[in-house]
Amino acid sequence: MASKKNLNVGMIGCGFMGRTHSNAFRKVGNFFDLEYQPVLKAVCARTQAKAEAFASQWGYESTETDWRKLVERKDIDLVEICTPNDSHREIAMAAAAAGKMIICEKPLARNSEEGLDMVKAVEQAGVANLVSYNYRRVPAVTMARQLIDEGKLGKIFHYRAVFLQDWTISKDLPQGGTALWRLDASVAGSGVTGDLLAHCIDTALWLNGSIDTVTAMTETFVKERKHNLTGQVEKVGIDDACAFLARFRNGSLATFESTRYARGHKALYVFEINGEHASIAWDLHDLHRLQYFDHRDEGILRGWRSIHVTDGEHPYMDKWWVPGLQIGYEHSFVHQAADFIEGISKGQPVSPTFREALETQQVCDAVLRSAANGTWEKIKA
Amino acid sequence: MASKKNLNVGMIGCGFMGRTHSNAFRKVGNFFDLEYQPVLKAVCARTQAKAEAFASQWGYESTETDWRKLVERKDIDLVEICTPNDSHREIAMAAAAAGKMIICEKPLARNSEEGLDMVKAVEQAGVANLVSYNYRRVPAVTMARQLIDEGKLGKIFHYRAVFLQDWTISKDLPQGGTALWRLDASVAGSGVTGDLLAHCIDTALWLNGSIDTVTAMTETFVKERKHNLTGQVEKVGIDDACAFLARFRNGSLATFESTRYARGHKALYVFEINGEHASIAWDLHDLHRLQYFDHRDEGILRGWRSIHVTDGEHPYMDKWWVPGLQIGYEHSFVHQAADFIEGISKGQPVSPTFREALETQQVCDAVLRSAANGTWEKIKA
Amino acid sequence: MASKKNLNVGMIGCGFMGRTHSNAFRKVGNFFDLEYQPVLKAVCARTQAKAEAFASQWGYESTETDWRKLVERKDIDLVEICTPNDSHREIAMAAAAAGKMIICEKPLARNSEEGLDMVKAVEQAGVANLVSYNYRRVPAVTMARQLIDEGKLGKIFHYRAVFLQDWTISKDLPQGGTALWRLDASVAGSGVTGDLLAHCIDTALWLNGSIDTVTAMTETFVKERKHNLTGQVEKVGIDDACAFLARFRNGSLATFESTRYARGHKALYVFEINGEHASIAWDLHDLHRLQYFDHRDEGILRGWRSIHVTDGEHPYMDKWWVPGLQIGYEHSFVHQAADFIEGISKGQPVSPTFREALETQQVCDAVLRSAANGTWEKIKA
Amino acid sequence: MASKKNLNVGMIGCGFMGRTHSNAFRKVGNFFDLEYQPVLKAVCARTQAKAEAFASQWGYESTETDWRKLVERKDIDLVEICTPNDSHREIAMAAAAAGKMIICEKPLARNSEEGLDMVKAVEQAGVANLVSYNYRRVPAVTMARQLIDEGKLGKIFHYRAVFLQDWTISKDLPQGGTALWRLDASVAGSGVTGDLLAHCIDTALWLNGSIDTVTAMTETFVKERKHNLTGQVEKVGIDDACAFLARFRNGSLATFESTRYARGHKALYVFEINGEHASIAWDLHDLHRLQYFDHRDEGILRGWRSIHVTDGEHPYMDKWWVPGLQIGYEHSFVHQAADFIEGISKGQPVSPTFREALETQQVCDAVLRSAANGTWEKIKA
Repeated sequence: MASKKNLNVGMIGCGFMGRTHSNAFRKVGNFFDLEYQPVLKAVCARTQAKAEAFASQWGYESTETDWRKLVERKDIDLVEICTPNDSHREIAMAAAAAGKMIICEKPLARNSEEGLDMVKAVEQAGVANLVSYNYRRVPAVTMARQLIDEGKLGKIFHYRAVFLQDWTISKDLPQGGTALWRLDASVAGSGVTGDLLAHCIDTALWLNGSIDTVTAMTETFVKERKHNLTGQVEKVGIDDACAFLARFRNGSLATFESTRYARGHKALYVFEINGEHASIAWDLHDLHRLQYFDHRDEGILRGWRSIHVTDGEHPYMDKWWVPGLQIGYEHSFVHQAADFIEGISKGQPVSPTFREALETQQVCDAVLRSAANGTWEKIKA
Repeated sequence: MASKKNLNVGMIGCGFMGRTHSNAFRKVGNFFDLEYQPVLKAVCARTQAKAEAFASQWGYESTETDWRKLVERKDIDLVEICTPNDSHREIAMAAAAAGKMIICEKPLARNSEEGLDMVKAVEQAGVANLVSYNYRRVPAVTMARQLIDEGKLGKIFHYRAVFLQDWTISKDLPQGGTALWRLDASVAGSGVTGDLLAHCIDTALWLNGSIDTVTAMTETFVKERKHNLTGQVEKVGIDDACAFLARFRNGSLATFESTRYARGHKALYVFEINGEHASIAWDLHDLHRLQYFDHRDEGILRGWRSIHVTDGEHPYMDKWWVPGLQIGYEHSFVHQAADFIEGISKGQPVSPTFREALETQQVCDAVLRSAANGTWEKIKA
Repeated sequence: MASKKNLNVGMIGCGFMGRTHSNAFRKVGNFFDLEYQPVLKAVCARTQAKAEAFASQWGYESTETDWRKLVERKDIDLVEICTPNDSHREIAMAAAAAGKMIICEKPLARNSEEGLDMVKAVEQAGVANLVSYNYRRVPAVTMARQLIDEGKLGKIFHYRAVFLQDWTISKDLPQGGTALWRLDASVAGSGVTGDLLAHCIDTALWLNGSIDTVTAMTETFVKERKHNLTGQVEKVGIDDACAFLARFRNGSLATFESTRYARGHKALYVFEINGEHASIAWDLHDLHRLQYFDHRDEGILRGWRSIHVTDGEHPYMDKWWVPGLQIGYEHSFVHQAADFIEGISKGQPVSPTFREALETQQVCDAVLRSAANGTWEKIKA
Repeated sequence: MASKKNLNVGMIGCGFMGRTHSNAFRKVGNFFDLEYQPVLKAVCARTQAKAEAFASQWGYESTETDWRKLVERKDIDLVEICTPNDSHREIAMAAAAAGKMIICEKPLARNSEEGLDMVKAVEQAGVANLVSYNYRRVPAVTMARQLIDEGKLGKIFHYRAVFLQDWTISKDLPQGGTALWRLDASVAGSGVTGDLLAHCIDTALWLNGSIDTVTAMTETFVKERKHNLTGQVEKVGIDDACAFLARFRNGSLATFESTRYARGHKALYVFEINGEHASIAWDLHDLHRLQYFDHRDEGILRGWRSIHVTDGEHPYMDKWWVPGLQIGYEHSFVHQAADFIEGISKGQPVSPTFREALETQQVCDAVLRSAANGTWEKIKA
């Protein structure tokens, strides 16, 4: 460890994502042999009390309450943006200007205009940058990409993805504030489109290439909710549900759907891709399994294989335990941290960069535009 | 049995559906106690040899090679239309004119214009009529309706259905003729829309009420195939795949998709419906199970229940074996036959009548219109 | 049909098994092209009313109330023994003496002494004979045998089977009489051992060869129940649950368990067999699926394949519908009927013959002996 | 963190278990609010190089190559025994004599004689002690115990458990040495009995109380393997497979089986418990799910519930992420560490103590005795 270089991390945000990223940087060195050892240098929260509590819990060396100060600190190499969406652009641009590497929570921004500013900023500054679409680095999902790259599926005909939740069905749930900013359109930018479909779209673009056109519908089932900040009942601006049809540039067809009103589903992100020779399906609720069907198998023995992705041969899994012993959600962030650090060592960009994540934003924008207009929309590149 | 009245059945068509319906009428009296005993009176096929072979196999008393003769026979009470779609209208209108009861295979017709003629004909003639959307009578599906009727689900937010197959991926598969008329647009009317989505739509309308608007896309992946009748390579006129978004009149949103290019799926008809309190899912590949989630269950014990629908309390199941011992696909037709015969006894229409099935046709038409125009389409009532 | 020879069937017993066998012989000619057409000639029940009702429901031409008369009728070719276990021996010996072919419900008898008499009788008479271990002819199970015969599994290490039910947990359930003779030891011979484990053992012997030694335990959880015939509370003589360890002659180890006290299971017959190269598992609650794992698959793609055994290539399935459309429990009896009739045509015995089924009986006897003595017992051949 | 007391940990062993325990103590403070903060004080390995590499990877402050030195260090509060089984007794007795708290990897020892010495040592010394049967603290398993304690299952009739692996099938796999000491009987004490069945037995005793009697069989499929230490082909002394029948003191029956020759299973630990009212099943390959069946559910809606144990209400889960996002294998060790530290704070023993784990050892001994003698054996208390 003595011989490793330090990578000084400054964390902005102490919520759910602040925790997943802190955990990742704390753990990554125990499991991956990397050139850099992350050092949890500083954390920034809105109040001193919050920052200190978080620092104490995770072992950050110092605290800030003004993110601008953190961004400007000389002893910070990497800025982690784990704040609500409405501050991504401003923080990222300041961090880029200060020459910091940046990992930004998804979605990149509230819309592609904001996102484009961010892309320009990091590219101009020439700093390493990544958007945290963590599900790419669940081993089963990484393996899906690997199988597609090897040509195992052949020509692709279909892609389908859903991300189903059920936590906002109650009309008594308020909107806004620290806990519920995802329900406040001015902060989040959109509802399930930016929150959940963005994940589905990121994976889809990664596995199946660019989307050409979409047609969408959205719905807000609960039209008014009490706002946590004003105490008033206010109109709900987000989309509670969103579904869209898409055509990929490779000629395949797709359906996407997301909602927070699908009773019985906590975080059911499922995707399936059907190729000429083989198909793949995956499900976040059983994230360590990959379903695989290969038509080239002997006729009577064809069936969907339930692959328990826990062997040393499987992506990332040589770093963990032994076959059969699964890892969980948090490990996707550890893998992301490891890959990001390797990218630094090699001086290479790590996917998805801000620019790559901008495409997801552009699909989201087209989806929302289509839902508003009732038309097929072309993705603006 | 001596005391039962005879119901003389005349079957037109000796294909896959001719077999399912013949089996149903042969078996129904062994398991259901009905006022009428079906008698397999006559079968009509295109050639005498085919008709005789089928009659011999299934025990039909006589044969015809001209369906008009069968329809006019005095000793026939019920005409079964198990022919390709392009003949449904003509046969049905003649049978209605002859005062026969009619069971017509789905879809009702190639389009709603044809369908409307048929509806008018049976209603004018006042004859019992039914379209064979058999999946309604899989016990698990019947139970889904029962649970929804009881209000178990509460307000409905979402409906989703897919019907996925993979049998036409090979470019070497020809189109047309007896075996492959489903690939010939002039005979079938459409591709997966009328063949597979029609099933999904029928179930959806039955469980969740009318659809208001749709937006759709279709694709023909293999543009040309040899035609079995002409021996020439001809343009393929059917939709190989079709997906659409829909809004139901009750305010719920839906996605529907069907294809014959989803590698790994033989006949995967899956639907799911999400309500405020509970959700239901079903899958044709495991048709004897119903998945049910109830949010009113004790918190830590909430989970999807996998219900093995094989108890005497479950719909139709008191007629079969003992708990745990499942029935299969063919039994949905036996249940349909039993219900149809009970309808005769009670002088009541049995769902789905031609008129009810016309609504499915109207949705199919709107879907195809939307796919052609790229617009949201309202269902024409 | 005109050109087929008749096979005149005489059925003794009108219960659950009387129905499954009647259904099989009524249907078999519709789906299988056989030299003989079964004719439901006569049915025998304890009362005339019962016999007539059953004859009317299933189309038997005549009735008897004394099985001896049925057995002696010149117009009967095949005697079906679907009565409780205590009458199997007597009926079978009379039928053999009368030169009839015999299909006997399982288990062959109450014990192997009775069974041996029956074996000798049919062998001496030289009549075709079969014991109805129907699960062998579920397509997925037949395919398991086929894969093992092909050597797909290699050397076998392990076999395990359970048959779990939960229908006798209530203390208020009486024993004995027509409905509940399975709980009366004097009629049934044993409890779950002869009723459920006999199925497991039959499949195991068929798939994995002979069992050498066993050690067992049994339990009767409810010690006394009201007897339906006497109206008195009487001691329960059957085993409610039975489990045993076994060593096969091929060196593999096995565990077997059966009970009627496993809450949540209706008729969960599950077996699994593990070989050097591959493993197979099957489950009666999803009888149309076979689970298959092959270690020779590419490393990262190894997984259990869930094979939907509904293709034309799968055993018996070319006779039924199309891929993806499943058959059920009753079809195993249709397959048995078809195979039995083909055996007649070819003049060949059809498995399991009385002699083959005697081995299952011998294992059952050893199991009960071991449970009584607390010792390892060798199977008496 | 400043206000927390330090708990100085001394780790002996750098293998698989050294890693799981180190990870647990490093992470526990990030997720659990505890009075003590573990400090990774020292690690002991056989060579200095190994110890230093491990210290560097995990952040241990110092190293030892002689465990006796580590045990005697004044700055160590807690000794972690993560060495092969043959050293457990000696290290534990020395650590107890030195007044250290002890966490010992399972099984407690090679046999109950050794185990009893260890129990006496820790009880005499009055030091906190725990055996690392980590699966108890998988949230789904903890919840099983909770449901049983609440009486949800009622009277228990059946328990069954298997632990199936397939990693030693190849005859070319050697035995012994650092990597493969589990195949060397002199080091491990036994094969699958102590390694895998010990887990099954621990859970069973915890959930269902004491076992009274057992009858068992064992097998060594590969009789000779090259020994890594001698380079010679030597007799294999361990049991490759072991199965046993058991009777619990509460009157329920059980089957247990373990093997390393079940092709297709990596670490398939499955248990099921059947009660009068409800049943529970769990599977290590999907460790975040609990299967639950409740007969008191409405009749037609009875089914096995697949509970995704990832809600804040579920055991331990309020410490982790959000509903639907699962944790993995390693977290069971974090929970164990948290509970152990809470036990220190409260001055209370934490299960399973050495004494409690001795009972598992006594069952293992009886199992091996029975397998050797072919007799039913009573557990020696």
